[in-house]
Amino acid sequence: MDACLMTATAAADAAARIMARCDALAEISETSGALTRVHLSPEHLRANALVGKWMTAAGMKVWQDSIGNICGRYEGQQLDAKALLLGSHLDTVRNAGRYDGILGVLTAIETVQYLHDRGERLPLAIEVVGFCDEEGTRFGISLLGSHALAGSWPEGWVDCQDQNGITVAEAMKNCGLRAERIWQSARDVEDFVGYLELHIEQGPCLEQEGLALGVVTSIIGSYRLSCHFTGEAGHAGTVPMNHRKDALVAASEWMVYIDQRTRQAGSQFVATVGDIQCHPGAINVIPGEVALTLDIRGPQDDELAELLADLLAKGECIARQRGMQFHAEEYYRSFATRFDSKLQAALTRAVVQVQGRSISLPSGAGHDAITMGERWPTAMLFVRCERGVSHNPAESVTNDDVALALQAWVQVVNDIAG
Amino acid sequence: MDACLMTATAAADAAARIMARCDALAEISETSGALTRVHLSPEHLRANALVGKWMTAAGMKVWQDSIGNICGRYEGQQLDAKALLLGSHLDTVRNAGRYDGILGVLTAIETVQYLHDRGERLPLAIEVVGFCDEEGTRFGISLLGSHALAGSWPEGWVDCQDQNGITVAEAMKNCGLRAERIWQSARDVEDFVGYLELHIEQGPCLEQEGLALGVVTSIIGSYRLSCHFTGEAGHAGTVPMNHRKDALVAASEWMVYIDQRTRQAGSQFVATVGDIQCHPGAINVIPGEVALTLDIRGPQDDELAELLADLLAKGECIARQRGMQFHAEEYYRSFATRFDSKLQAALTRAVVQVQGRSISLPSGAGHDAITMGERWPTAMLFVRCERGVSHNPAESVTNDDVALALQAWVQVVNDIAG
Repeated sequence: MDACLMTATAAADAAARIMARCDALAEISETSGALTRVHLSPEHLRANALVGKWMTAAGMKVWQDSIGNICGRYEGQQLDAKALLLGSHLDTVRNAGRYDGILGVLTAIETVQYLHDRGERLPLAIEVVGFCDEEGTRFGISLLGSHALAGSWPEGWVDCQDQNGITVAEAMKNCGLRAERIWQSARDVEDFVGYLELHIEQGPCLEQEGLALGVVTSIIGSYRLSCHFTGEAGHAGTVPMNHRKDALVAASEWMVYIDQRTRQAGSQFVATVGDIQCHPGAINVIPGEVALTLDIRGPQDDELAELLADLLAKGECIARQRGMQFHAEEYYRSFATRFDSKLQAALTRAVVQVQGRSISLPSGAGHDAITMGERWPTAMLFVRCERGVSHNPAESVTNDDVALALQAWVQVVNDIAG
Repeated sequence: MDACLMTATAAADAAARIMARCDALAEISETSGALTRVHLSPEHLRANALVGKWMTAAGMKVWQDSIGNICGRYEGQQLDAKALLLGSHLDTVRNAGRYDGILGVLTAIETVQYLHDRGERLPLAIEVVGFCDEEGTRFGISLLGSHALAGSWPEGWVDCQDQNGITVAEAMKNCGLRAERIWQSARDVEDFVGYLELHIEQGPCLEQEGLALGVVTSIIGSYRLSCHFTGEAGHAGTVPMNHRKDALVAASEWMVYIDQRTRQAGSQFVATVGDIQCHPGAINVIPGEVALTLDIRGPQDDELAELLADLLAKGECIARQRGMQFHAEEYYRSFATRFDSKLQAALTRAVVQVQGRSISLPSGAGHDAITMGERWPTAMLFVRCERGVSHNPAESVTNDDVALALQAWVQVVNDIAG
């Protein structure tokens, strides 16, 4: 194994600083007990200011763009060279952990700090972005920061409202931003050679492999559906079993099938019924109607569509056999994102160098890299998180893993931009 | 077949009057759109007054007892003879049908009217009772009227509160009744030779047999439990299927088993999961905990206990296999009530006479006859209701069936009291 550019000692020190900064950012929260930092809030602006200060300290030129992303640029050997963009997001869900998104932004800054400390300039510039809204916590739409930067901001989004009826446009105005200038966030396709994002895995695969780092192959596609079984309510004491049209029994048979069939589809497919409602919902009444959600994800769009079709056909079949109705309505779909193979190869080299071996794995969660991947060559690195727990105050990463991630980041940045 | 005592023509006329009286009582409701008449309400007192008037017209001495039951007595050939008691209840659930309980009281009055119109006195007196609270709609306790009359009023019940915090004792005071006199409702065991109740089936069995009337063998025993599967919540996209502890999948497997196993137990056993709650209950989160209700009923206490034990063992087993916890808490139990065999035989003779043949069936629902059966020989007759629908404004019976029921009632009263 070649020696790493950044020594283990230096990486450990820098990782300790990253962890301390994650703690500092976790203090900037709408509520004191639970970390919540949403788009266009006072906390958003305070977090941007703090991160901007750290960017400046790392030798970067810093600006907040027109949607509220915090951006920094570390020039290359030539002024106005193309840049490699590193980043992730700074917003959170409600009652969040302190690493989701944030770790990626702070590791990127430390990578630039490494160059800056050595007075080193690469042929390419390095830019860092802290996206302002990936989670979609406030407005019911997500990936706002990366959509603005990629120039794919959808028409109508400025009119979306939060729970208090405040639109994106109004909330921007309250933060001193102007909705009619969102287009100014959009970067030229020639500005960047590519986008790299480091993020906690939010799943258990790296932990189970005993590895700190893994290269993400793709973000899996997904469907969300709202499904209904309609049977017939009745008295729980007086209607014999063989005369029942119990919507909950039908739904149960379907849920067992969903679990079994999805396991058979392969290890990268997942299907979840996350919520279920039973009507009328009384202990002594046979359920006449059941509403349930279905979230299904997979790395290949065709196979995922096939799996979904099979599940829905089974739902129909179960309902028909029991003399009931089944209805499913798709209300969200995202296609699978396959990451750039050259960037994946570069990441794999870096991971092998710092960790001895690398694994590749898909991401079951959405990330800013989806939007960025539509415009620039894009890839992602995952960092192990304890028990896969995320979107939760218990979200946890280790100093050692963060140090290794930082070494890999320094390595890959030199590989691509050097 | 012997000729019936009451002619079909006379029965049809009387049945029409019963139906008109059901309609009249349905107008006495707390809400104008939906029939609701609860214990110790102004509507309760108005209904008692109207029913009392009909009792008086049928030649009965009438009184409201100390808990609020409306009572009538038609003397036999000797004053103060033992009586045969006929009755059912006059209270309703919320948004009720107009026949549940009420039909039994009005048919009993018409039976006495038949005797009164002919100036006929039997060796036994006939009493009719309209119980004031069978449903338990208001105070969360049920069968209040029959408990008071049977002298089995539980200590502490006068302190039970309704949704507004009004106790039974306070509500009684507001109606001019006194809680300390509830004991005065209790009748001596020697007062009655038995209790007969006519009630709509609230199930589909008679309809499916093509019969208007059926003799009830028993009221099946029941358990109510609150059950929990505890697994582990997680991200619906990032946790692979084989690493999940999805509490809803475990619950589904159990619900499918409950359905299959209960069908195998025999046609008189029923089990129902009437409500289910999923936590945290978001489309993109694997359910970490599921709470579900279980209502299970059967005619033999031993076999029912055995079935329940089997279902709970399976719940444990499913949870263990999936690395989860299962917990079930029993919070209600009623033992099966077997009705008096002599009274059943008398009912069967009467039903065969008016209908050509009779069937026997258990009741899956609770009735005043449970309480009465603990003190006096008791039996019940079921009348077909459309599609088994009850506790619903769509509750429906036909004039023809009511006429047949009345003929049977006249027949059996003469058989027992004659």
